[in-house]
Amino acid sequence: MTTSPDEPYAEPRAVAAANRPEVTPDLEALYRGFDRELLVPLWTEIGDLMPIHPRSRAVPHLWRWHNLLRLAERAGELVPVGRGGERRAIALANPGLAGRPFATPTLWAAIQYLMPGEDAPEHRHTQHAFRFVVEGSGVWTVVGGDPVPMNRGDFLPQAGWNRHAHHNATAAPMAWIDGLDIPFQYGVESQFFEVGRDRLDPAERTKPERSRSERLWGHAGLRPLSAPAGAAPGSPLLSYKWAVTDRALDDQLALEKEGHGGTVEPGHAAVRYVDPAGGGDVLPTIRAEFHRIVRGAQTAPSRETGSSVYQVFDGSGTVTVGDRTWSVSRGDLFTVPSWTPFSARSEAGATDSDSGALDLFRFGDAPILEALRLHRSTTDEDPR
Amino acid sequence: MTTSPDEPYAEPRAVAAANRPEVTPDLEALYRGFDRELLVPLWTEIGDLMPIHPRSRAVPHLWRWHNLLRLAERAGELVPVGRGGERRAIALANPGLAGRPFATPTLWAAIQYLMPGEDAPEHRHTQHAFRFVVEGSGVWTVVGGDPVPMNRGDFLPQAGWNRHAHHNATAAPMAWIDGLDIPFQYGVESQFFEVGRDRLDPAERTKPERSRSERLWGHAGLRPLSAPAGAAPGSPLLSYKWAVTDRALDDQLALEKEGHGGTVEPGHAAVRYVDPAGGGDVLPTIRAEFHRIVRGAQTAPSRETGSSVYQVFDGSGTVTVGDRTWSVSRGDLFTVPSWTPFSARSEAGATDSDSGALDLFRFGDAPILEALRLHRSTTDEDPR
Amino acid sequence: MTTSPDEPYAEPRAVAAANRPEVTPDLEALYRGFDRELLVPLWTEIGDLMPIHPRSRAVPHLWRWHNLLRLAERAGELVPVGRGGERRAIALANPGLAGRPFATPTLWAAIQYLMPGEDAPEHRHTQHAFRFVVEGSGVWTVVGGDPVPMNRGDFLPQAGWNRHAHHNATAAPMAWIDGLDIPFQYGVESQFFEVGRDRLDPAERTKPERSRSERLWGHAGLRPLSAPAGAAPGSPLLSYKWAVTDRALDDQLALEKEGHGGTVEPGHAAVRYVDPAGGGDVLPTIRAEFHRIVRGAQTAPSRETGSSVYQVFDGSGTVTVGDRTWSVSRGDLFTVPSWTPFSARSEAGATDSDSGALDLFRFGDAPILEALRLHRSTTDEDPR
Amino acid sequence: MTTSPDEPYAEPRAVAAANRPEVTPDLEALYRGFDRELLVPLWTEIGDLMPIHPRSRAVPHLWRWHNLLRLAERAGELVPVGRGGERRAIALANPGLAGRPFATPTLWAAIQYLMPGEDAPEHRHTQHAFRFVVEGSGVWTVVGGDPVPMNRGDFLPQAGWNRHAHHNATAAPMAWIDGLDIPFQYGVESQFFEVGRDRLDPAERTKPERSRSERLWGHAGLRPLSAPAGAAPGSPLLSYKWAVTDRALDDQLALEKEGHGGTVEPGHAAVRYVDPAGGGDVLPTIRAEFHRIVRGAQTAPSRETGSSVYQVFDGSGTVTVGDRTWSVSRGDLFTVPSWTPFSARSEAGATDSDSGALDLFRFGDAPILEALRLHRSTTDEDPR
Repeated sequence: MTTSPDEPYAEPRAVAAANRPEVTPDLEALYRGFDRELLVPLWTEIGDLMPIHPRSRAVPHLWRWHNLLRLAERAGELVPVGRGGERRAIALANPGLAGRPFATPTLWAAIQYLMPGEDAPEHRHTQHAFRFVVEGSGVWTVVGGDPVPMNRGDFLPQAGWNRHAHHNATAAPMAWIDGLDIPFQYGVESQFFEVGRDRLDPAERTKPERSRSERLWGHAGLRPLSAPAGAAPGSPLLSYKWAVTDRALDDQLALEKEGHGGTVEPGHAAVRYVDPAGGGDVLPTIRAEFHRIVRGAQTAPSRETGSSVYQVFDGSGTVTVGDRTWSVSRGDLFTVPSWTPFSARSEAGATDSDSGALDLFRFGDAPILEALRLHRSTTDEDPR
Repeated sequence: MTTSPDEPYAEPRAVAAANRPEVTPDLEALYRGFDRELLVPLWTEIGDLMPIHPRSRAVPHLWRWHNLLRLAERAGELVPVGRGGERRAIALANPGLAGRPFATPTLWAAIQYLMPGEDAPEHRHTQHAFRFVVEGSGVWTVVGGDPVPMNRGDFLPQAGWNRHAHHNATAAPMAWIDGLDIPFQYGVESQFFEVGRDRLDPAERTKPERSRSERLWGHAGLRPLSAPAGAAPGSPLLSYKWAVTDRALDDQLALEKEGHGGTVEPGHAAVRYVDPAGGGDVLPTIRAEFHRIVRGAQTAPSRETGSSVYQVFDGSGTVTVGDRTWSVSRGDLFTVPSWTPFSARSEAGATDSDSGALDLFRFGDAPILEALRLHRSTTDEDPR
Repeated sequence: MTTSPDEPYAEPRAVAAANRPEVTPDLEALYRGFDRELLVPLWTEIGDLMPIHPRSRAVPHLWRWHNLLRLAERAGELVPVGRGGERRAIALANPGLAGRPFATPTLWAAIQYLMPGEDAPEHRHTQHAFRFVVEGSGVWTVVGGDPVPMNRGDFLPQAGWNRHAHHNATAAPMAWIDGLDIPFQYGVESQFFEVGRDRLDPAERTKPERSRSERLWGHAGLRPLSAPAGAAPGSPLLSYKWAVTDRALDDQLALEKEGHGGTVEPGHAAVRYVDPAGGGDVLPTIRAEFHRIVRGAQTAPSRETGSSVYQVFDGSGTVTVGDRTWSVSRGDLFTVPSWTPFSARSEAGATDSDSGALDLFRFGDAPILEALRLHRSTTDEDPR
Repeated sequence: MTTSPDEPYAEPRAVAAANRPEVTPDLEALYRGFDRELLVPLWTEIGDLMPIHPRSRAVPHLWRWHNLLRLAERAGELVPVGRGGERRAIALANPGLAGRPFATPTLWAAIQYLMPGEDAPEHRHTQHAFRFVVEGSGVWTVVGGDPVPMNRGDFLPQAGWNRHAHHNATAAPMAWIDGLDIPFQYGVESQFFEVGRDRLDPAERTKPERSRSERLWGHAGLRPLSAPAGAAPGSPLLSYKWAVTDRALDDQLALEKEGHGGTVEPGHAAVRYVDPAGGGDVLPTIRAEFHRIVRGAQTAPSRETGSSVYQVFDGSGTVTVGDRTWSVSRGDLFTVPSWTPFSARSEAGATDSDSGALDLFRFGDAPILEALRLHRSTTDEDPR
C-alpha cells in the first residue's frame, strides 16, 4: 500500500492567501475584462487548484449493503433490463461530488441486479471494468463468447472494448458489484460505446465450471504458447476464483506464524490481482486487492494519492477514514478519498459471534497515478 | 498525429434512450429511495456517461492574442506579483467548462506577464508544466538554481516537483504562455505544492546564454555519463531553443522537396519535443509539438481522443475545429476538444503580405491517454 | 515457437569466395606482417564469420537416458560430493564443440545425482540455472533457506546469485537434470561464484510439501503485497509443480477438441514457464517450455535462431533435427542447434503399448536473442 | 562507467580444487565411459567454467596505429575490394583468443581502408556495426540509399540488417575503424548476411554535408512526427558529428570549472552516444562513449564485467589495463578484458609538446550484459 515518492517528501508550508490585491474600481474593471474574454486569474484560484496536499472534493462515506440490496430488489421488480438502459446497475454517488454517480472522482461503483432468467444485452465500451461477488451465484457473464461463472468471492476483470453480456441461469435473483473507471474517462473524454447482439447464442448459455480464459490462463506460472503477447490491454484471465484468493491469504498468515514474514504487517495479509501475461495490474486504470485482517489486528494508518472503494467481504470490524469511523460488516461499501488516512480493525460485531478475520475487497485508481508518476504514499501512526 | 487503435474501430450504433422505464408512482418512490441513500441508476445516466464516442463538454474556442496581451498589461499595472498569488498568470476558461480556468478538461493554458525587474517567487508543485514564448525576451526562469533564458520560440518544459522562480532582467515587460496539467491533477487529486525562497541568490540572477541543462543535455545524440538515468520524471533538458526547432522544420521541408519524405503530409512539417534521456514525451502528462504548414498547404482533417491547445507562432491562415473556422495570426490561441476534427490552412492574412508558413505550437494530453491505452485517432477527409 | 522477424526475411544470396585475391609473394609478405602484428583480414574469414544464415558449430545429437543414468549411478559410487567439486553433475558435450561440456554454444545440460543422505554444499553463482525432474523424488533443494521439494515433472528455476544447496532426504538415490547458461557466461565472461555454508541448518532440512516461494507466489493471478517488485532478476517462484503443468496441457487439448483453439497447432499443446512477477521468461537468459503432442500428431517443422535442448518426459515418438531422426523415449535428451529445423511425431515405441502423448520438456536461449533483437524464426513445411 | 550491482557484492572465497577425487582404475574407467557417451563431469571443469570472478581469456593488448596504417596501406596496393571479400578490413586478433580475429570475446575491431575512387559493395547483415574516424575524410557511407559523410571524429552507428556500401570520393585513400559484434553473434549463432547491389546509383554518390538521417534526427530534443516509433533496433541517426561531441565535452569541463559538476570525476568528461528515438545505447549490443581527460588528470581505476576496446583520438598519456601500462598517442588501439582494472592518465608524450587533453573513444559490450542482468562494476583505488 506504500510506495516511496521519488524524493523524500517534506510537508509544504501553506500558500498564504493574504497577499491578494485589494479590490479597487480599477481591479474590478480588469476582472470584468477577464470575464468578457473568458479568462480567470491564477491568483484567485490557486488555493483551490494548487493545494499544499490533495484535498479531495469526495468525502469518506459508507453505504450499508442491506440498503443497497433492498433498493436493488425493488428495482428488479420495477425496472426491466434491456437495450438502452443496458444494465440494472445502481451507482454510489459520493455526497461531495454534486450528485453525480461517482463513488470517487475517478471510480464508479454500483450494485447490479439480475432476475431469474434475465439477460443483460451484449455491448462493449472503452471503460475498463470488473465485477466482484459478495454473495450469491448463478449468473454467467459472457465475454467475447466465453461464459464465465460468478460465485461468491470471485473477481472478474474486463478490460475495455471486450464484448460482454450477462445471464442469470438460476431461479433466484443475484446481485454483485461493478467497478469501472467511468468518472475518469468522463474526465479525459475517451469513451466509446458499441451495442452488440440482443440475445446470446444457446452455446453461450452453457454453464461450465471454468471459463475458457481460466483453462488457458489460470495455471500459476504458465502461459499458453498459442496466445499472442500483449495483444490487448488488461488481463486475459477473466475470473479470479475465490478458492485461490482465500488460500493465498491463508498461506501468508501461516508463513507469518512460522516466522517467515509474508504479510504486509502483523495479522494483515494482502494480495493484488495481476495480469498473468504482464505481471502488472489487471486493468490499465484500476488496481484491485484483497486484504485479510485477523481478529484483533489493526492496520497502521496509511494514505496515498488517488482514491479507493472498499467492500467488506466477510467478518466485521471498525474502519477509520479520515475523521470518520464506522462499524462494518458483510457487503458494506465505503470510499477512501485521495490522501485521506485509512485504517481497519478486525473485531466481533454486535450481532456476531464468529472469530473470523475481517476480509476486505479493495479497488482504486493507483495505476493511473503510477503510470503518470503522480503516486505518493506514506504510512505513519499520526498521519497529517 | 495519428495512432492506430488496437483493433479496427467500427463506428458504434447509438444507444437508444427509448427503452427507459415509464415513470410510475412506484418508480418515483424507488427514485426517492435512491436519493436518500445517495444512489443514482445507470439507466438514466448512460447516454451522458457512456456516449458512442467522446462528446466533449469543452468547446472549440479562440482567444485573440491582442486581447490577452492588453489585459495582461493592465494586470501588470494593477496586480503585484508575490507570495500567495505566486504568478501573474491569466488562464483561458473554456466556455463549456462552467467558468473554471480550464482550457480543456485536462489542460491549463495561461498568459503570464512579468514587469521589468520583477521576480516571481520560488515554489514547486507536482503539476507538470512548460513555458512557450511567442514574443519577447529578457526573462530568466531559474529551475533548481539553473538560470534558463527565455526568448521568442523557446519551449521550456518543467516536470513536477522542481523548484522554480522567474525574474525579468530587462527594462521591458515580457509575456509568455504557461501550459500545465492543473485540471487533470485537480481531477485525480494528486496535487502537492511547496513554497520556496522569496528571493533568488545573486548567482541565480546571472544571465548566461545557455542554461546548465542545455550544456549537459543539449547535444543531439549524446548523454552525459555523469547524469543518473531515470532519476526523475520528465526531460532534464530545460530549454528547447527556437533555432533548433526552426532548422528541424526547414530540414523536413527541404527533404520533402528533394523527394525523400520527412514531412507528415505534403507541405506539413512537424516535430515533437522529447526527453533526450528516454526518447518519450517531455512531460509525463503533456505532449508538445511544433507544426509548420507552408503557404497554400492544408492539413488533412484528423481527430483523436484527448484535447489540445494551439498557439499561432507565426504566419496566418485558417483553422477549422469541429464546426468552427477562424482566421488566425500570431499569438492567437485555440482549443481542440476530444474527438473533434481539426485542420489548418496556411494563407496570407488580410493585413499581411508575407509569404511565410503558418507556424503552430501545440500541446495536448496524449501521454495520459497513451499510458492508459485509451488513445485513438483517425485521419479522414470527411470526419464524422 | 515462431516469432516474426522485424521485416520480411528474404533468403540471402551466397557470398562468393571466388573473389579472393590470388596469393602472390607480396601478399604472403603482407599476411606475415598481419601475423606479426596480431591482425587477421576479413576477406579470408568472412565465410565463416558472416554466413548467409546461421551454420551452427554444434550438431544435433541424442543422449540416451539409460546411458546417462548408468554412468551417474557409477559416479555415485566412486565420486564423493563436496566442496570443491560442488555437485555430482555430468554434462552433455556436443560433438561439434571440441569436447567442451557444452550442450550447445550457450547452454549447459547435465544429469545430477545425489545419494541417500547426501548434501550438495551451499554456493551461489551468477549463472542462471534450473532443475527439471524426469523421474524420482526425495531431494529438497534449499534456496535462500527455503526448502523446495523435487518430484517427477517439477521445474525449478533459480536465477543467478541465489544461495542454494541440495539434500537427499530419502533412502534412494535421485537423478535430475540441470540447465544453466554456463557456456554463454563463459563467452561473455560475466561469472562470479561464492561458496556458502558447508552444512544446512536442521530447520532447512525439513521437508514441507510446498516451498515458501510457492505459498507466496504460486497462486494464479495474485501477487503478495509484501513482496518488493523487480528486486532481483528471474522468477520468485522456485517450483513449478507437475500437476499444474499437466492440467494446463490437458486443458488446451480439451479446448481444441471443443473447437475453441488453445493449442499451438492441431494435437500440439504447449506452455511456457513464466515469471509471475513480470510475465516474462523465468530466467533472463533461459526460456523453458513444456510441449505435449497427442499420439499420432506431428509438429510442423520450424526453426529459429538460438539453440535448444529437449528432454523426453513421457511417451515415445520420432524427432527430426536437421538431417537426423531418432526414436525417443522417456529421459532421452537431444540438442537443436541454431537455425536447424525441428519436428516431432508422437507414436508408440517398439516396447511400448501405451496410448499416451509425447511429452517434451524444452529449454533454450531465446531470451538472449530476443533481448538483443537477434531473434528470427520461420515455420514451413520445407525448411531450407 | 560504474553501475551498482543488484546487491552489495562480497568477494567470493575461492573454490578449492583440493577435493577432487583420487584417480583410481575404477574412476578412469568411469571417465572413459564419459568420453564414449560425450559427457564431461563438472568437478574437473568447475574452476575454469565457474571462477570466483571473471578471468578473461582475452588479454590486455595494444596495437600501434602506425603499424595498422602501414599494413592497411600495403593491403590497399595488393588486395582489391569487391564482392566476396566485401571489405578491405583488417581485424585485431587478441593474443589470448587463439588467433581468431576477435579483439575481445564479443567484439570485432578492424581498420578499414578505401583507395581513391573505390566502392565497397552493398550488403547487409544482422551484425550490429559502427564506424569511427580517427583521421582523414572523403568517404561517404551509403546506408539505405542515404549518403553519410565521414570525417575525423565522426561516429557512425549502423544497426543490423541495414543495407550499406562505401565509396571514396576523393583522390586520397582513407582509413577508419569498424566495430562490430561479430564474435558475439558467432557465439550465439544469430548471423544472417545478404549481398546487395554491386554499384551505387549516381544519386547515391552525391556528397551532401549532412545525411538525410541527420536532417531528420540530428536536432537535440526533437523527433520527426513522420518517423514511425521503434520500427527497427538501433539509432535512426547515422552520424554523430565531431563538432557536437567536442562541444559537449568542453561544456562538461567548463561546468566543472564553474563549480557545477557535469564531469564523471575531476578533469574527466564523458558522453555516451545514444539513440535519440529511445534514449538508450545506439546499438542493441554495443555501447559507445567518448572520454576527455585534461592534461595532468588521471581516472580512478575501475573495472566491470564485459569488455571494451579504446582508441586514442587525440593527445597522449599513459593507460593501465590490469598489469600492463603503455604510453599511447593518436590512433593507438587497446583492449580492456572483462573485470580488468583500467585507468588513464593524460600527459605530454615524448615527441609531443601540446598541452591538450587525452581524448579516448571507447566501445564495449555493456548493453548485452545489462539486458541480461549480468552487469557489475566497481570503482576503487586498489582493485583486486
